[in-house]
Amino acid sequence: MSEALDDAALKQLFLDARTFNKFQSRPVDDATLHALVDLMKWGPTSMNTQPGRIVFVRSAEAKEKLKGALSGGNVDKTMAAPVTAIVAWDTEFHEQLPTQFPAMPGARDMFHGNEALIAATVMRNSSLQGAYLILAARALGLDAGPMSGFNNAAVDAAFFPEGKWKSNFLVNLGYGDASGNWPRGPRLAFDTMARIA
Amino acid sequence: MSEALDDAALKQLFLDARTFNKFQSRPVDDATLHALVDLMKWGPTSMNTQPGRIVFVRSAEAKEKLKGALSGGNVDKTMAAPVTAIVAWDTEFHEQLPTQFPAMPGARDMFHGNEALIAATVMRNSSLQGAYLILAARALGLDAGPMSGFNNAAVDAAFFPEGKWKSNFLVNLGYGDASGNWPRGPRLAFDTMARIA
Repeated sequence: MSEALDDAALKQLFLDARTFNKFQSRPVDDATLHALVDLMKWGPTSMNTQPGRIVFVRSAEAKEKLKGALSGGNVDKTMAAPVTAIVAWDTEFHEQLPTQFPAMPGARDMFHGNEALIAATVMRNSSLQGAYLILAARALGLDAGPMSGFNNAAVDAAFFPEGKWKSNFLVNLGYGDASGNWPRGPRLAFDTMARIA
Repeated sequence: MSEALDDAALKQLFLDARTFNKFQSRPVDDATLHALVDLMKWGPTSMNTQPGRIVFVRSAEAKEKLKGALSGGNVDKTMAAPVTAIVAWDTEFHEQLPTQFPAMPGARDMFHGNEALIAATVMRNSSLQGAYLILAARALGLDAGPMSGFNNAAVDAAFFPEGKWKSNFLVNLGYGDASGNWPRGPRLAFDTMARIA
């Protein structure tokens, strides 16, 4: 049986964690991005569908492709961030199910032609995987700045012209500089957001 | 600057964590559920919208209300779990924005009547919050068994007849009994799920 993590870990993951708008110049290398994926990939998805896909936008050339799709307030901080992850999904994720969910041989065919089931599955599960990415980054000592203020169609046209992957949201990644943080937002009271039945 | 959490913490959160189908008889008390919400609530959401809502289904009476909505394979394990969290969203989440996102006085009105923006915001962000719930549970030494195999409309009719909250997915919670675990599913290779651009 597991015990609770210590206070320092709970603070790093949740209690003291912040959305960062500014990062140190320290780069994020390939090994760190691989370590990040090797951690977040273990988070659970429905039927092990794993529809989430990630493009780590790091080169100046790739950043420039992203620039025109960003909402005004997100341009400068995103261009300056060491890496921007595009959290996306693969509309053909179910083609992987024969190897990823062999317990149900009919899993792939369950999705074929069922656009409503595909739409719910990709949005729910790639969002879960995006949250795993944010928390895995914090667990590795990185800082994250997630955003949905951008033009999804423009990102898709620039990065996924073949039409198979679709963008969900963005996450700036790096080693944070707290001088760029905004005042921390409040949170809803327990009785507003939860019930015990 | 944060360091990476130690290996034991990374294992508890991700590397060795599993989806549990069976739980010990040890109950989950109110204080633990409050601690869980007080941790997961700090995870980031777009514009601090916090659309996620949670019903902790724990009493025999509430479990019985849930039973008829569950897919066949999820009935027995869910009825036996100490608690089942309904991760839901509030379709009127934006009414909270004047206190939750005071930096943008027009935030609430931006959502009024914009059903497409509301739909994307609630699904993306309540899913993020559901992922924070799963990882916060693990961080507190609890185990989680998330599921989307149930009839959302039936859960909504039973628990949210007023029509304001809508169910997203379910998470069984308790202290796990690993004897009920299935073989662990594989994960996609880095090059299948990610790119560095």
